[in-house]
Amino acid sequence: MSMGLLIALVHHPVLSRSGDVVTTAITSLDIHDVARSARTYGVERTYMVTPIAQQRALVEHVFSHWLDNPVHADHPRTEALRRGHAVTSVEDVLEDLASVTGAPPYLVATSAKRGEGDMPYAELREKLETRDGHALLLFGTGWGLAHDLVARADAKLAPISGEDDYNHLSVRAAVAVVLDRLRGN
Amino acid sequence: MSMGLLIALVHHPVLSRSGDVVTTAITSLDIHDVARSARTYGVERTYMVTPIAQQRALVEHVFSHWLDNPVHADHPRTEALRRGHAVTSVEDVLEDLASVTGAPPYLVATSAKRGEGDMPYAELREKLETRDGHALLLFGTGWGLAHDLVARADAKLAPISGEDDYNHLSVRAAVAVVLDRLRGN
Repeated sequence: MSMGLLIALVHHPVLSRSGDVVTTAITSLDIHDVARSARTYGVERTYMVTPIAQQRALVEHVFSHWLDNPVHADHPRTEALRRGHAVTSVEDVLEDLASVTGAPPYLVATSAKRGEGDMPYAELREKLETRDGHALLLFGTGWGLAHDLVARADAKLAPISGEDDYNHLSVRAAVAVVLDRLRGN
Repeated sequence: MSMGLLIALVHHPVLSRSGDVVTTAITSLDIHDVARSARTYGVERTYMVTPIAQQRALVEHVFSHWLDNPVHADHPRTEALRRGHAVTSVEDVLEDLASVTGAPPYLVATSAKRGEGDMPYAELREKLETRDGHALLLFGTGWGLAHDLVARADAKLAPISGEDDYNHLSVRAAVAVVLDRLRGN
């Protein structure tokens, strides 16, 4: 028994540096990096979440550039991008997942800020290895997921820490480190 | 007693997809991502290595954009970029280090390919925590460090692995995961 793992890179609702709820722009390298990390660690689906239609079109354009061109058929990026989806909202992710898996996922928020009741990585890792169903990890761009989104999650992972209190990893780096802690060998 | 840790992001000599030794272009996001991951995990210096003068100028331009502009003084990126250096070759990194530390570093290569005698992460982590001196981690862009560079290293880390044999992490992701394995809490 083990849980399927999915991730969503959220561009809304996320925080600005000053703490406002904003919509961030897609960073094109994120599409590749997050997909490659996801594929490396066996993530089943990767959702790029943005309410802006033109931005979803940009994501779809990158997908089709790699997936629809025979020249790229045997490139490892192509295999990674095959698991990518561009969607409008976290609600849409949950609906899509429910239609595939038949049940709501175990919803896990990530954050660079410490909070009461943060779940240690070892605990989620064990859950993934021993339970049934699916877990969806939410990653916020900008200055992190909006508080409402964190509040509705079933669990929030502890922030990644290194030597001291500085933790300003790029979201690309954070995705890779979190997946390695949950699924790395 | 503990070892100081330094990293170099190498753009030459590295391999192309077909296995030739080439020089890759600087990816501007790498400058930020690698510096932010390095600062998070207490890396003392981050070297961007390229023999192309205009590319080093690009790196210096990014550094000065953040370091010389008072508007960015309290931005976490600025603190991260302060530890960055643009250099011509791995030899120059070793010379710079020798001039600062007075001794050659313990040279560690990284690779996505498994090899005989690969050093497990726990072993290097313990070395870093219990020995004296400095360790320099080399990361290759493109399709990885040239064989000669790997051969002259004192150690080569085992490749990062997730669920199966697919490991095509971006170098930005690989730097973060390796540092987390060596220095994460």
